[in-house]
Amino acid sequence: MIDKPVELFLDELASKAPTPGGGSAAAIMGAMGAALVSMVCNLTVGKKGYESVEDEMQRLLTDAESVRARMADLVRADMAVFDQVMAAYRMPKDTDEDKQRRAAGIQAALRAATEVPLDCARLCAQVIRLSRVAADHGNRNVISDAGAAVMAAHAALKCAALNVYINVGSLKDEAFARSSVEQLETLLAECEPASEQIFRDVKERL
Amino acid sequence: MIDKPVELFLDELASKAPTPGGGSAAAIMGAMGAALVSMVCNLTVGKKGYESVEDEMQRLLTDAESVRARMADLVRADMAVFDQVMAAYRMPKDTDEDKQRRAAGIQAALRAATEVPLDCARLCAQVIRLSRVAADHGNRNVISDAGAAVMAAHAALKCAALNVYINVGSLKDEAFARSSVEQLETLLAECEPASEQIFRDVKERL
Repeated sequence: MIDKPVELFLDELASKAPTPGGGSAAAIMGAMGAALVSMVCNLTVGKKGYESVEDEMQRLLTDAESVRARMADLVRADMAVFDQVMAAYRMPKDTDEDKQRRAAGIQAALRAATEVPLDCARLCAQVIRLSRVAADHGNRNVISDAGAAVMAAHAALKCAALNVYINVGSLKDEAFARSSVEQLETLLAECEPASEQIFRDVKERL
Repeated sequence: MIDKPVELFLDELASKAPTPGGGSAAAIMGAMGAALVSMVCNLTVGKKGYESVEDEMQRLLTDAESVRARMADLVRADMAVFDQVMAAYRMPKDTDEDKQRRAAGIQAALRAATEVPLDCARLCAQVIRLSRVAADHGNRNVISDAGAAVMAAHAALKCAALNVYINVGSLKDEAFARSSVEQLETLLAECEPASEQIFRDVKERL
């Protein structure tokens, strides 16, 4: 999906095909956030007046590019786990043995379909933390791109959250479901005020 | 840009090239929001149990696809106006006549660079209104995609807002600058609570 032209990705997102959907859109928005952090770094490193933050910006760039690569993997993973869930629901249910195998298949698929958006949510929180550094120490001329980064990552986090909530609802492993929701809500509680603060700070310094 | 593979778009967003930047990212996020509204429509039209909203969903689809096409145009326009601003700043300034022509060129370019993100912000507000309908009347099985749509559009609106704020700061036409900021802030004030409400409603109905 990530190899396809942007316009074709958007056409497929809009279509009645079940994938790509909101989960893939979340991972791409998260990747856009990471890319915007990288852009700020790339326009700060080597710029006169920013010598004192050069090393910090190089490290920030490495981190942002690593997150971006992992987000790209999650676009593929999101579609794969969705297909896995659909395939599990289509398993035969004629005999008791069939039914047991199908139920186990569904649970395994739903577990994977919870872990992928939760991973996406963790990476989004990471992009938000990286945006803070880009906004504070990056090239002031492109500080709006740090503001765009944080908005993209926060939207991606909330889209990923919806996909976690959907899937935990059908999980039989209540401890795993509860732990997933707790982890997610910790990220949401941390990132909501942090994102707003970064956006306000960027706006004030424009 | 929109004809390029997603991965290449992300590479160019991350690079030190000044375009694409946050403005193009905003238009693509807005287009993703519109595409997700269309996806909900496409998975509602023709579905059993949704006959009573069929006409409404067809109209919603037409509106969402129209907004999506206009967002795609804004990706191109964002890059064009950025280049126009850069070209204006590079105009000769040797004679008084040069300086006058350059100053006029810069002002015309900044005006265009204000109008493009303001158009993007208006379209984002439109996507948020369309998401409300998708969330309320679309196929309940894909309601999370309506939630993803509203988050993408709201993030895009805030990214577009930053680009309006940057450019109005250098505008000499104060009436135009003031009017642009007023229009923008009306959209922001309307869309912030509306987006939060749609997200909460979707989350509750998952």
